[in-house]
Amino acid sequence: FYGHLFQLKSESYALLCLTFSMVQLCDAFVMLPLRSTMTWQKTYYEKLLFYGNYVLCLCLGLLCVVFVSYWNIEWRGGFAWDASFLQFNWHPVLMVTGLVVLYGNAAILYRIPFTWSQRKQHWKLVHAALLLSSLILSILGLCAVFDFHTGYHIPNLYSLHSWVGIFTVVLFTAQWLLGLVGFLSPCSPLGFRKLLKPVHAWMGMAIFILSLASCLSGINEKLLLALNGNSNSTAAYSSHPAEALFANFLGVLIVAFGLVVLGILSNQRWKRPEPGEESSRKM
Amino acid sequence: FYGHLFQLKSESYALLCLTFSMVQLCDAFVMLPLRSTMTWQKTYYEKLLFYGNYVLCLCLGLLCVVFVSYWNIEWRGGFAWDASFLQFNWHPVLMVTGLVVLYGNAAILYRIPFTWSQRKQHWKLVHAALLLSSLILSILGLCAVFDFHTGYHIPNLYSLHSWVGIFTVVLFTAQWLLGLVGFLSPCSPLGFRKLLKPVHAWMGMAIFILSLASCLSGINEKLLLALNGNSNSTAAYSSHPAEALFANFLGVLIVAFGLVVLGILSNQRWKRPEPGEESSRKM
Repeated sequence: FYGHLFQLKSESYALLCLTFSMVQLCDAFVMLPLRSTMTWQKTYYEKLLFYGNYVLCLCLGLLCVVFVSYWNIEWRGGFAWDASFLQFNWHPVLMVTGLVVLYGNAAILYRIPFTWSQRKQHWKLVHAALLLSSLILSILGLCAVFDFHTGYHIPNLYSLHSWVGIFTVVLFTAQWLLGLVGFLSPCSPLGFRKLLKPVHAWMGMAIFILSLASCLSGINEKLLLALNGNSNSTAAYSSHPAEALFANFLGVLIVAFGLVVLGILSNQRWKRPEPGEESSRKM
Repeated sequence: FYGHLFQLKSESYALLCLTFSMVQLCDAFVMLPLRSTMTWQKTYYEKLLFYGNYVLCLCLGLLCVVFVSYWNIEWRGGFAWDASFLQFNWHPVLMVTGLVVLYGNAAILYRIPFTWSQRKQHWKLVHAALLLSSLILSILGLCAVFDFHTGYHIPNLYSLHSWVGIFTVVLFTAQWLLGLVGFLSPCSPLGFRKLLKPVHAWMGMAIFILSLASCLSGINEKLLLALNGNSNSTAAYSSHPAEALFANFLGVLIVAFGLVVLGILSNQRWKRPEPGEESSRKM
């Protein structure tokens, strides 16, 4: 009986071992490749989703620049640098191009998966250079409106648009300089960089939101002042002339561009992996 | 010699054991309490920082409501509901109170550490009720301006401010209804809730940013139209009258309130812990 029991036990044990081996084999040859295919599919999907958003962001940015330029060429008489109305026309073009489109693209630069395998230092320089171009265009945009005001004896900085706008550019200048000292200067201590990073990212987003608000209120202000219905050459803003619809649509494009940029920035899965977590979040 | 060596080795071993025990004892009685004191201090600091920001947010919100009401009482003639200019005055008050102050406070409700130890279901109801009040005030605010426009035969929805504003309220309505179906309806499946949550949070932030842009462009528009310098009773906006400075300062308060709310929302450490991570992030 005991011999029979031992044989049964051995057989059960052998069966158990066999089942276990089968499960292991099944896992090794079927589930593991399936799991890795699923991970690969997830990674591929994330990559596709990011690049879809990125291409949308590039297209919307380009459309913003085209629309703001066309508006000022077609309905506002084009450009000059002579303290006239034509110099003012540089103001919306430079602000939208610099403070919104270039700035937005510089903000999402680190999110591009293509840059993750390369040295961060190089992309820091590209980020800083893009933001410097954005800052220079913004300052030129401010010069355009200040010169025009001086030429026509119009007081500076009276409207809420101008208050929010000047605050945005001042904050942007401070942020750029602090970023240069904190992240690109070789003598900046690591502890300071670590402390500065979340503040820098948060301030960057706040400046972008203020830029959007400044541009929207600026387009609204320009249309209210220019399309006042008093001059014979232009219809009133309230009568829905073609210029008003076109410039309002520019505002809609700016909102869409802003939301896509903020959407990319707020997605935690699209953040450049920190040195320790590179292996776990390869895209 | 070997005996001596063995004794030496034993002594060294005993010394090593003693040192190790001393280190363990030191760790248990000195470092562990110190570490827990440091964790406690860190938690206390985080709590203090959050409540500092929260009180700032409440004060700024209250100031926004006081400022927008005072502006319309002191300089715009007060309120009525008779399709006159006085009915229009409800528009800025209701929009700033509903779409900015109440909405912002509803958005940061889950961040209050005090609510973390309580059932989320209760706070979901408070969140929904606050947002419903915000939505009702916003719709009343829209009625105020539409009635005024009808009374004075002014076309609706011609300015960029009105386009962004109406888009914000439509998006808000859709978001509230989707939130009700997705998070408060008992028959909503868990998978759907999980999928909806990040979209709900992101849409909520986008609506708040659009509200801020709408309010800023709206204050700017009202001042440009009302302080046009054509009527005898009011000075031009560009001559910096007291009303303009006061209303511009209301805009500054709205920007400050918005930045504090967005700062609280973007801080990952201040998020309500998910069921699995409650123990690690007690505040």
